[in-house]
This record gives sequence, structure tokens and C-alpha cells, in this order.
Amino acid sequence: MKLMDELKFNDQGLIPTIIANVEDNRPLTLCYLNKEAIEKTLATGKVHVFRRSQGRLMLKGETSGHIQKVKKVYLDCEGNSLLLLVEQQVAGCHAGYMSCYFREYDAAQDAFTISEERIFNPDDVY
Amino acid sequence: MKLMDELKFNDQGLIPTIIANVEDNRPLTLCYLNKEAIEKTLATGKVHVFRRSQGRLMLKGETSGHIQKVKKVYLDCEGNSLLLLVEQQVAGCHAGYMSCYFREYDAAQDAFTISEERIFNPDDVY
Repeated sequence: MKLMDELKFNDQGLIPTIIANVEDNRPLTLCYLNKEAIEKTLATGKVHVFRRSQGRLMLKGETSGHIQKVKKVYLDCEGNSLLLLVEQQVAGCHAGYMSCYFREYDAAQDAFTISEERIFNPDDVY
Repeated sequence: MKLMDELKFNDQGLIPTIIANVEDNRPLTLCYLNKEAIEKTLATGKVHVFRRSQGRLMLKGETSGHIQKVKKVYLDCEGNSLLLLVEQQVAGCHAGYMSCYFREYDAAQDAFTISEERIFNPDDVY
């Protein structure tokens, strides 16, 4: 597979991968894929990640059902990272927001604000 | 600074940071910022990164002049990564494209296509 030839996996065998919403390009999360996760993602059309905290391959959304259907795959100029544009089911973040980047930081005030509406209550899903 | 309290730096002291275009949300590149790079980025409003290959702090665009002005700062749900929305001067990629993700991969064909127009010729800039 030509993609694999271009990729430079890090010393843990992983490629950092930006997952963004195909509808508006907005980044949803940053994941880590190993070779197997990339193969499974491409073969099924659904994002699979290597969950570092659990040391295993998993379908993104396997518990919540909030899967990510892959629409576009991009490689960066140096083969160090991937960008996947996806159709996100329900919401991308386990905290109930579309994007994991739902906290905006205001450096002048040294304060955070929640910049998105919450889509679901995690207590109802997990 | 409250942002620093929330961040979980990796074992190299770095935070992976998605840089995206404030105009259309499109991811431009993935960078790595250490504590000093974050402080300099917030203080100046211009993206500074820790260039791993050179082991030093640098202003993004210091050679090319293609700086990135920070418009929005977001933290992910777990404090593992940042998202910066920026106003990109000229183009974000040293290869001459707006985004480093200018190569689209078609898994069915096992082929790459260039999915953006080239904005500048690197030979004229570097």
C-alpha cells in the first residue's frame, strides 16, 4: 500500500491523525493510529484508533455508537501525520460535544469558556 | 496561567497542536509546542513551535515570512492537545501549498492526488 510507504511512524509505531468534520472542516479530535488501525480504517471506512491508555485497537465510537465514516484521507508533506475528514455520527467527544476542542482559552483574561452546545449527556451514553 | 495547569505535556515536554485556518477551519499542519513555545505564542500572538529536528524554539515562518497570527485557542477535553485557529500569511506549508495536507489518498486506487493549487515555488522563498 503506497500510503504505508510514505508514512513515518513514530518510535511507538503510531501516526498522529487529525480527525475533522467533512461538513465544515472543523477539527474534532487528535488520535493515534498504528499500522493495523490504518488498515482497518481504510478497509471498513470507519475510524479505528490505537487507544494508548488501553494498548489496543478500537473502533472509534464502539461504546457510544458515535462512529466516524471516512470521507477523505490526506497525508502531510513529510509523512508524519494524517488528516481524515469524516461524517461524524451524533458527536465526536465523549464529554458530549461535537468536537473535543469545546473549551476556548482567552489568554488576556486567563480564562476558559465553553464554545459549543453540548449535544448529549455522557451519563446517558456511557 | 490556567492553560498550563490543564495541559498534560508528553514525555518530551511537548503538546501536539493542530494549526487550522480561521477562514475555513481547514487544518494546515500539526506542530509541537513546549511550555516556552506556548508562552511565546500567546504573548506575541504569532505561532512559535518547538522544532524537534533542530531542538529549538522558532517562530513559524521565520525564514519564509509566512507567519501565523493566532485568532482562537482551544484545548481538548483531556488536555492532551491544542487547536489554534490562525490567520495564515501566504501559505502554511514549506512545499508551497496552503495546507501541509495537500496530498489526498485514494485507498481504492492506492494512489495520491495533489488536491490543492500550489501558491508559491519553494525555490523562490527558501
